[in-house]
Amino acid sequence: MRFRAIEANGREGVAGSRDGKVWRVLYRGDDGFPGLPDDFIQKGPAGIDAAAGALDRGASVADIGALTCLPPFRRAGKILCVGLNFAAHIKESGMPTPDYPTVFARFNSGLVGHGQPLIRPRTSDQFDYESELAFVIGRRARHVSEQDALDHVAGYSIFNDGSIRDVQLRTPQWTIGKNFDGTGGFGPDFVTADELPPGCEGLRMQGRHNGAVVQDTSLSDMIFGVKKLVAILSAAMTLEPGDVIATGTPSGVGLSFKPPRFLKPGDTFEIEIEKIGVLRNPVIAEA
Amino acid sequence: MRFRAIEANGREGVAGSRDGKVWRVLYRGDDGFPGLPDDFIQKGPAGIDAAAGALDRGASVADIGALTCLPPFRRAGKILCVGLNFAAHIKESGMPTPDYPTVFARFNSGLVGHGQPLIRPRTSDQFDYESELAFVIGRRARHVSEQDALDHVAGYSIFNDGSIRDVQLRTPQWTIGKNFDGTGGFGPDFVTADELPPGCEGLRMQGRHNGAVVQDTSLSDMIFGVKKLVAILSAAMTLEPGDVIATGTPSGVGLSFKPPRFLKPGDTFEIEIEKIGVLRNPVIAEA
Repeated sequence: MRFRAIEANGREGVAGSRDGKVWRVLYRGDDGFPGLPDDFIQKGPAGIDAAAGALDRGASVADIGALTCLPPFRRAGKILCVGLNFAAHIKESGMPTPDYPTVFARFNSGLVGHGQPLIRPRTSDQFDYESELAFVIGRRARHVSEQDALDHVAGYSIFNDGSIRDVQLRTPQWTIGKNFDGTGGFGPDFVTADELPPGCEGLRMQGRHNGAVVQDTSLSDMIFGVKKLVAILSAAMTLEPGDVIATGTPSGVGLSFKPPRFLKPGDTFEIEIEKIGVLRNPVIAEA
Repeated sequence: MRFRAIEANGREGVAGSRDGKVWRVLYRGDDGFPGLPDDFIQKGPAGIDAAAGALDRGASVADIGALTCLPPFRRAGKILCVGLNFAAHIKESGMPTPDYPTVFARFNSGLVGHGQPLIRPRTSDQFDYESELAFVIGRRARHVSEQDALDHVAGYSIFNDGSIRDVQLRTPQWTIGKNFDGTGGFGPDFVTADELPPGCEGLRMQGRHNGAVVQDTSLSDMIFGVKKLVAILSAAMTLEPGDVIATGTPSGVGLSFKPPRFLKPGDTFEIEIEKIGVLRNPVIAEA
């Protein structure tokens, strides 16, 4: 099953598709509205099943591409992002290879949905893209083994961990440069785990800047894969349904080009992950 | 006005005091219940005034100390923590003095209320304390000047930014070591800004480990004070009502002692900030 959080005429809704072709939608206030993904994921796998069932009775959508996408989750209790998780990207960053994940946080407030503009801030021209796989927790996880880890993952989406590089690297902690308003993209589809290979291993991910392929990797190349991340993170903290983990970007970020290939107003960046979809965002200047 | 989020017999409530002596309380479900601070702060200064007015008609509390405290805010959209904000602490950390705030994130899930146990995890004996002032946003802030900054601050509380040092320092990003379950303390009182000097300048803050004073500073010694933090953070991202900013710890953290003075089960740590109150937590081992 794949879900989108959408908006039309000021009403929020959820769209769902069992085959990626026929989409059905229910809006807040409609009979049988199952809530947005933020809501129904709180009920775990049963909540997802119930939402899928409810959407079977939703109105069919003529053109899913015409509906405004929201980020599939906008009320994640935690958004944890892994840095330095692909060998070639570590090399281009000049950082040492880690024996433990390098994790920073993003907040919901900095993310936009598929098709919505990413915002290059007034104060920097170093707005960079980062193509990433995100996974979403579906069952509370604390001290979970690698072996059991995937039982706690509800599904997957696409994440552009857009970064303001000069600010990110201005102090030892990257947080401010990773949380400018409108600099992250998330979506469009939240695809349940049963549709995808375990941990998305082997899937191909590509980042395209104005159509040119700038990032291209197999998700098998992650140093810390989905299972390891669930195990390591849950040894420290409880992962709750709806928590989002973005798993890190491969080589080819804008900063690695000479001269750097930063995002400018008028640009488009798109990320494609095989079997998940395409996250595409135009870039505008902050007003 | 000072507020506490409290719990009694499984019911959540809010307690309020205009003079710090007489406290009144309303529980969820009571007539006139104004919501918890997370709720009423969403309505800005008017919401706080309305909650204070509602509590004037609440039941009087015989012994405020007997009520279980929750963190005053548990649904902050963002918890931003400033590191390296006191010169003597920067020196003891061996870090360079920053010209821009070093910011990392905590999540609500790692915090406990006043009186609740802090949890030393199974996997580390390097559980350290950090006494801090926290401020809470009361009005949306974006591109706010230092001059206008305090108009966006609803009030203040006390924050123990407890840290698992070996994990914090294991990778370039501190996030995991700052977000172990039950390692942060927050509260008890949320004190509205009108009761305190602007930006809490000049107030004294003390941290006491098993009664011994280990941290002692004037809040005037912050490198980036409250006004500067609002201006700098709001230049990057929108600060929303209920967002919490913890302003950094002074010298005297456990790691700076030889041998280090880490928190052990059976210990107590308390933080006192003049005119705000005392945040006291016992320490237990993770089960």
